[in-house]
Amino acid sequence: MMTREACVGLDLDDPLRARRDLFSLPAGLIYLDGNSLGALPRAAKAALDRVVEVEWGQGLIRSWNSADWINLPARVGARIAPLIGAEADEVIAADSTSVNVFKLVAGALALRPGRKVIVTEPGNFPTDLYMLQGLAAQTPGSDLRVVEPHQLVAALDETVAVMLLTHVHYKSGRIHDMAALTARAHEVGALALWDLSHSAGALPVALDAVQADLAVGCGYKYLNGGPGAPAFAYIARRHQAAFQSPLTGWMGHARPFDFSDAFAPGDGMKRALCGTPAVLGLAVLEAALSVFDGLDLAQLRAKSMALGELFLDLVETRCAGMGFSPVCPREAAHRGSQVAFAHDHGYAIVQALIARGVVGDFRAPDALRFGLTPLYLGYADVWDAVEHLVQVMCGEEWREARFNLISPVT
Amino acid sequence: MMTREACVGLDLDDPLRARRDLFSLPAGLIYLDGNSLGALPRAAKAALDRVVEVEWGQGLIRSWNSADWINLPARVGARIAPLIGAEADEVIAADSTSVNVFKLVAGALALRPGRKVIVTEPGNFPTDLYMLQGLAAQTPGSDLRVVEPHQLVAALDETVAVMLLTHVHYKSGRIHDMAALTARAHEVGALALWDLSHSAGALPVALDAVQADLAVGCGYKYLNGGPGAPAFAYIARRHQAAFQSPLTGWMGHARPFDFSDAFAPGDGMKRALCGTPAVLGLAVLEAALSVFDGLDLAQLRAKSMALGELFLDLVETRCAGMGFSPVCPREAAHRGSQVAFAHDHGYAIVQALIARGVVGDFRAPDALRFGLTPLYLGYADVWDAVEHLVQVMCGEEWREARFNLISPVT
Repeated sequence: MMTREACVGLDLDDPLRARRDLFSLPAGLIYLDGNSLGALPRAAKAALDRVVEVEWGQGLIRSWNSADWINLPARVGARIAPLIGAEADEVIAADSTSVNVFKLVAGALALRPGRKVIVTEPGNFPTDLYMLQGLAAQTPGSDLRVVEPHQLVAALDETVAVMLLTHVHYKSGRIHDMAALTARAHEVGALALWDLSHSAGALPVALDAVQADLAVGCGYKYLNGGPGAPAFAYIARRHQAAFQSPLTGWMGHARPFDFSDAFAPGDGMKRALCGTPAVLGLAVLEAALSVFDGLDLAQLRAKSMALGELFLDLVETRCAGMGFSPVCPREAAHRGSQVAFAHDHGYAIVQALIARGVVGDFRAPDALRFGLTPLYLGYADVWDAVEHLVQVMCGEEWREARFNLISPVT
Repeated sequence: MMTREACVGLDLDDPLRARRDLFSLPAGLIYLDGNSLGALPRAAKAALDRVVEVEWGQGLIRSWNSADWINLPARVGARIAPLIGAEADEVIAADSTSVNVFKLVAGALALRPGRKVIVTEPGNFPTDLYMLQGLAAQTPGSDLRVVEPHQLVAALDETVAVMLLTHVHYKSGRIHDMAALTARAHEVGALALWDLSHSAGALPVALDAVQADLAVGCGYKYLNGGPGAPAFAYIARRHQAAFQSPLTGWMGHARPFDFSDAFAPGDGMKRALCGTPAVLGLAVLEAALSVFDGLDLAQLRAKSMALGELFLDLVETRCAGMGFSPVCPREAAHRGSQVAFAHDHGYAIVQALIARGVVGDFRAPDALRFGLTPLYLGYADVWDAVEHLVQVMCGEEWREARFNLISPVT
């Protein structure tokens, strides 16, 4: 039987424990929502002071050169690359995940002329589905094929241009078999586009190794880039020369400062850029990524799985009979860096936990979701979170919870 | 004959003089590039400290509610609205100007079914042209009609869905007659979309009064929102209910937190949103807009015109025979808040001026461009800038200028 003492012991032995000091966390708070908004890395604050006071305030327009703002999208992309198994020149940071989905799906259709079918699954993260719906509506002859996970293999045929799936499901945490599904897509000549929003920075991803074609992901979850941070896009090197973005903004031009009237796409990932880069957001994201410096991703993953196991075990034993049922995969290998439970009063329980300083979130219709960020979360934190959950249930505190939770970012 | 003393006198009488203290400007620098990147408002720094340390660092995910992050795009839009002659609910801040051009042009085509012609002019700001080229390439049957300014009226016929023009030209500063061209577009049933990147915050704009249909604009020029700040979009209220964005991201959904699988557009300007808002950038832009609080835009415009007149007069008299010819309209009423001159050695002269602490910029092939931001620029600054120009020319300093200028934002 696990005890709090044993959890404290695990923390003391944790090789990642020192990384917690790289973050500025509110005292007394147990933060289980890093999969919605990552915590503030201390380095981000210093970078922001520099970019605002020195680069913007003093350097002004000259900082596009002197502070190399112009290369921020590529520089930040290169820093994200090793976290997702990509080469430095295959990733760029820009725009939002939604906008990048649009670029890459439209680009995929152009790479597969004659094919008009896009495959995805119901319950995919909403913005992925919505962007596909909008794109399909304006693409004559296109066919958006939304099929359940077990039908994916059957749905992939020679008419399919691109398959868009989210690697780790935002609600359940279920991990798709990226290697197998990518291989299956390739068998029928389709492209595989992976949304890594709940993967990047949380578990090792091997885009190049599995020969993924395209990917997008979020900058403000496990990458800790701050609210609304720039997102990223990946295009496998073999596709870059033929890739055509539908959003041909001036930053994607081969020579933007020629100010010529005709668009000509830039080399490599540059052509996936569109408007002027969000310098402040990129500078923060760049600094935030320093928390991964020298990190062994296998170690990160091992701790993430152990925290998940602990959470599930504790709820199973200490909350037995209280109405919780796991809605995440029970096997760690199939689960991202989060756990989730269904409960009839899920919404109110999450509220009551927040009132106690345990911040998780709720996903309709009935899921309590807890993100487990191994860089700043320990075993004793998980123990304490479940202890609070036990107290909320025993004291029926959830009956008095205020119903005002909106958690708009997943 | 104008003297420096007289310029100092004009500054002392300037009702806008105190606004300069709202900005943090490098000592000794004469900044004539606020039309490329606005200077740092002091309020921006305080806002950023708050949003990073308190809202992100302490509030974490809860700040979407407690700090009302979720309404930042609408709140910032409402603050921009009076600067461009719009109602608060007609403007929203989001994404880049390029992405907003795409949304609104595609939206305009959907508002005019059966029409496929888009009208614009050569030499429009490149990203406007590039975005149109990309959109046209993926819109079957579309026809991008690029005509010289004097042919615009003739080019507007019953086949035209939308006309996209930049109100104030980025290079020459020429102002289009927004009222007349909008009226002409309406005569043939077309929509008028105005790019206000070089207008908003620099001169009064009357979108509602001239019955403009759509508009976009930049957050980092005269609005001083910082490098790569979020841009804005305007949709006249009468078009909002029928407007369909091509970029149907989750933030444009009527109920994003239902996490439903089917897209349903939100009310009003909300449907022009796409991905998660860039909170840091929006918070800075919101604070930066406080420099306009209580400002009489007519007074701003009067000073802007006077600074331009002074600049042109001084170059005409003091730089006579040095090879400068104005490439901006000579009449203040037809000129935005900038002046420009052609010179065979324009690039090198701009470099030599920058070395002296007079920051303007260069636009190919031969234009020296000087932005005149009345909020932080005075008459003596203009005098001193031209004095430096005289010295650069007399000392032939431009022959030794380093050729390393890149000024990527216009």
